[in-house]
Amino acid sequence: MRRRYNAVPEIAEEEAALQTSVKNVEVHTRRTFAIARSSSDVFERVIFEIEDDGVTGRGEAAPTGYYGQDAGGVAAALESVKVDDPWDIEATLARNSVMPSSALAALDNALHDLAAKRLGVPVYRLLGLAKPEPISAYTLGIADRETTLSDAERLRGYPILKVKVGGWKDVETLRAVREASAADLWVDANEAFTAEEAVEVVAQLKEIGVGMIEQPVAASAGPEALGKVTQAASPVPVVADESSIEARDVPTLAGYVSGVNVKLAKRGGLRSALEMIHTARAHGLLVMLGCMVETSLGISAAAHISGLVDFVDLDGAMLLADDPYSGPVYKNGRLLLSEKPGLAVEPR
Amino acid sequence: MRRRYNAVPEIAEEEAALQTSVKNVEVHTRRTFAIARSSSDVFERVIFEIEDDGVTGRGEAAPTGYYGQDAGGVAAALESVKVDDPWDIEATLARNSVMPSSALAALDNALHDLAAKRLGVPVYRLLGLAKPEPISAYTLGIADRETTLSDAERLRGYPILKVKVGGWKDVETLRAVREASAADLWVDANEAFTAEEAVEVVAQLKEIGVGMIEQPVAASAGPEALGKVTQAASPVPVVADESSIEARDVPTLAGYVSGVNVKLAKRGGLRSALEMIHTARAHGLLVMLGCMVETSLGISAAAHISGLVDFVDLDGAMLLADDPYSGPVYKNGRLLLSEKPGLAVEPR
Repeated sequence: MRRRYNAVPEIAEEEAALQTSVKNVEVHTRRTFAIARSSSDVFERVIFEIEDDGVTGRGEAAPTGYYGQDAGGVAAALESVKVDDPWDIEATLARNSVMPSSALAALDNALHDLAAKRLGVPVYRLLGLAKPEPISAYTLGIADRETTLSDAERLRGYPILKVKVGGWKDVETLRAVREASAADLWVDANEAFTAEEAVEVVAQLKEIGVGMIEQPVAASAGPEALGKVTQAASPVPVVADESSIEARDVPTLAGYVSGVNVKLAKRGGLRSALEMIHTARAHGLLVMLGCMVETSLGISAAAHISGLVDFVDLDGAMLLADDPYSGPVYKNGRLLLSEKPGLAVEPR
Repeated sequence: MRRRYNAVPEIAEEEAALQTSVKNVEVHTRRTFAIARSSSDVFERVIFEIEDDGVTGRGEAAPTGYYGQDAGGVAAALESVKVDDPWDIEATLARNSVMPSSALAALDNALHDLAAKRLGVPVYRLLGLAKPEPISAYTLGIADRETTLSDAERLRGYPILKVKVGGWKDVETLRAVREASAADLWVDANEAFTAEEAVEVVAQLKEIGVGMIEQPVAASAGPEALGKVTQAASPVPVVADESSIEARDVPTLAGYVSGVNVKLAKRGGLRSALEMIHTARAHGLLVMLGCMVETSLGISAAAHISGLVDFVDLDGAMLLADDPYSGPVYKNGRLLLSEKPGLAVEPR
């Protein structure tokens, strides 16, 4: 039914598609990064570039196995992208919307980077936003008690630690972190618990004094399971991550969670992130902005809209040993963007 | 709870507010314009201007008595607006969000006009959209059968007529229009009927072959009343107008209507219109873009985002005898924007 009365004219035949390129990059985390369901220290990312008028726009895809994506498939999808009018971000994304979500995010981010560079403004300004200076959480993967405590010690001065948990042992480790650290503590369970377990877990987490709890139960358990945990956790907010992939998921979660975690790689970059943020706000929900393990290119894209959200978790590039891009600077957990045009990121 | 961890820094004390101006203009429709609850041929509009770097951004407020607004109050609200950073549209609107909605829309539109003019692009391009060329409905106010039929004759060639109805007599007039005109017919009842009456009315409207039915029952009757009518009207879409003021209304209407009518003057201009469109799409709803009786300035602002919607009803300026602005051109119901920067509207 969409656009019945005002179809956008077809692109003229003679208009040439712009020059694009796709390359795979392998990045490594400083330490092995474990969450409830997986563990890794090497990540393959796909970089999409588009050139117009001597200006290059770049976007990063962070293919995620959880969503059935791999770097090969994502790169192949991006290889087939044709961009006729890079200014028409809406239609370009719509025409490519069957791509894996992280590929669509790379395209969206490259188009925003290109448009803002051509206009000579940072992306946040293109979007009518103030220059953001978010304080991001720093994520501690699942590890033994000693490692986690030594990490917390190393991260003294970081205002927010997000601690991954996968079982009761990790909750006990968290209790020790609480005693050793002055940081705000957020908890991410990545679907580790049943609803019954989670109700008990969040009672402990409340006692420990955590500030936010992310995805305590499986997305497949449905909104009602999240609702039980949200009720038990109140007033500590419970935020849906694996349950909230795109804007259309938000209405199904409203009333069952306190907020949703928006990630650019989950659906299609900045544009779909804004759609999801707007939908969440219309439902009175809190909003978290999260990331995958990503280079400074992907992280920066999210950082530009971080002024719109309540919880910022954009540490992906902080975890890397070999970030191939530079631009944003982390300073004691604060993420500082430059005022350069576009996403303000360059290859190292 | 919003922005707990990433408060935007306060504007520095020494930063001066920009030069703004407010003026009231009186415009007249070619004919007296009657809807179910009111009738008029003179409309007071308020123009807000903001100047930065030698560039002027303009926005129009269409104060609406139905929403408890008058031109005096709207002008007074706009007189008190201080803009420190015109690029930061989000925060400027948030700081002024207590203003009457049409005043907020004027501010929003002026900021978009200014930003796009300074960047040298039309507003649609600033927003990442294609150049829109929407076909708009042309609205026929409530009138006797002869007047309406002569109007329909005069408007031969217009693809869509939107006919206002307030009672059974108007439904019969519509039946005569259907026989005399080849146009698609939309119907706007502006809350005229009870749910019981409306169920009977829409049965007739289906038979007549209308393409869309707007706000058949009072907003105060609640979503369930609309739901009954939507069910009776199916497959003809029923669109909420008076029931859907802002994005937060959309979740309460989902499941009860086919779509929502978004108007820039209802909440706060382009930015809140995009929020409402995104929320409606997340709920799988159709979207109509409507207007008040407005000059070409207000109409153009809406036209820039018209590529995002299903039903375009932006004839406000077409109805005027003394439009003080020029820019968009109506051609047999099609609304043509120029490619000039900003809203592409200038004083005559």
